Amino acid sequence: MNALDYFNARLEATISPMDYMKASKADPNKYMLIDVRNGPAHVRNVTIHGAAIIPQQELADRLSEIPKDKEIILYCWDVWCNTAAKAAKVLLENGFKVKELTGGITAWKELDFPVSTLTEEKALPDDCGC
Amino acid sequence: MNALDYFNARLEATISPMDYMKASKADPNKYMLIDVRNGPAHVRNVTIHGAAIIPQQELADRLSEIPKDKEIILYCWDVWCNTAAKAAKVLLENGFKVKELTGGITAWKELDFPVSTLTEEKALPDDCGC
Amino acid sequence: MNALDYFNARLEATISPMDYMKASKADPNKYMLIDVRNGPAHVRNVTIHGAAIIPQQELADRLSEIPKDKEIILYCWDVWCNTAAKAAKVLLENGFKVKELTGGITAWKELDFPVSTLTEEKALPDDCGC
Repeated sequence: MNALDYFNARLEATISPMDYMKASKADPNKYMLIDVRNGPAHVRNVTIHGAAIIPQQELADRLSEIPKDKEIILYCWDVWCNTAAKAAKVLLENGFKVKELTGGITAWKELDFPVSTLTEEKALPDDCGC
Repeated sequence: MNALDYFNARLEATISPMDYMKASKADPNKYMLIDVRNGPAHVRNVTIHGAAIIPQQELADRLSEIPKDKEIILYCWDVWCNTAAKAAKVLLENGFKVKELTGGITAWKELDFPVSTLTEEKALPDDCGC
Repeated sequence: MNALDYFNARLEATISPMDYMKASKADPNKYMLIDVRNGPAHVRNVTIHGAAIIPQQELADRLSEIPKDKEIILYCWDVWCNTAAKAAKVLLENGFKVKELTGGITAWKELDFPVSTLTEEKALPDDCGC
């Protein structure tokens, strides 16, 4: 694999926060954004605005919630997180169109892009077993 | 692709701030460093010292400014930024020798490596359309 | 290379701090963690708890210190650092099982995972020539 293959693969597999913000504003119905972070719910109560929440550990059992005709954008914690990559692997193997949001929620927050805080009523169950 | 292919591809396609600093001191004429960030000029007025400025959106029209006999080093904002990867793709497809500076200007600044601040007279035009 | 190949390669070549923490607790003898950072010793005196220290520049001469029956986990400074990738290349070419710890010691510290500070007596020699 040469350098061009490497960049092509990265650009096919990922989308930056800035590019996703622009693309989803231009065509909101084209995308489904999914927060695939695992871990205790209280550390995940801030999410990217508009994201569905499907922890990577539950993903294989919840494929029916994910549309095949949209581009699925996955994110986890940060650039060093592999959880979105694991989720992307599952979805790609099942025929979905998928990209990872680079930098996860950390890069998104650094850019001051909109997030949501789950209220207590809507709080996540704290029993994902991770 | 196995793990060795992956590391070989990354090492062929990228250079770290520390390695670029060392290499460009040893042989300054070997490299051309280009800031390919898009976006309003005022948010890009701090650049890596010595960098040429060619926004990625203008790159395809400005290839004549780039020498084929140097190693072209591209950077954008941060590790999660895909702008340098997009620019690298264009340059590689046009026969240039290219590497991405890992971590962009953010990693460079974290290392306290030298930057330049554009003065008002030399300010960038704020009309790149991005 | 398509997106699935890209994610498979990343997952084969790297392990996140969270995954390494969990895996090494479950089976401590399966892994050897190596700090491969180069540079003056005083800037490297904080290490990940339990790591062996073999600077990347010395690695080719110290392969006999590394077991072939363990999974070798390498780390350097941060996500933008290429030193662990260079070390991984050497080890993979010599038949070792290797992964890079994503995000290096910076991500590890951000997660408040345990580190060690070398005391003066145990201080690293400051003569690695880098």
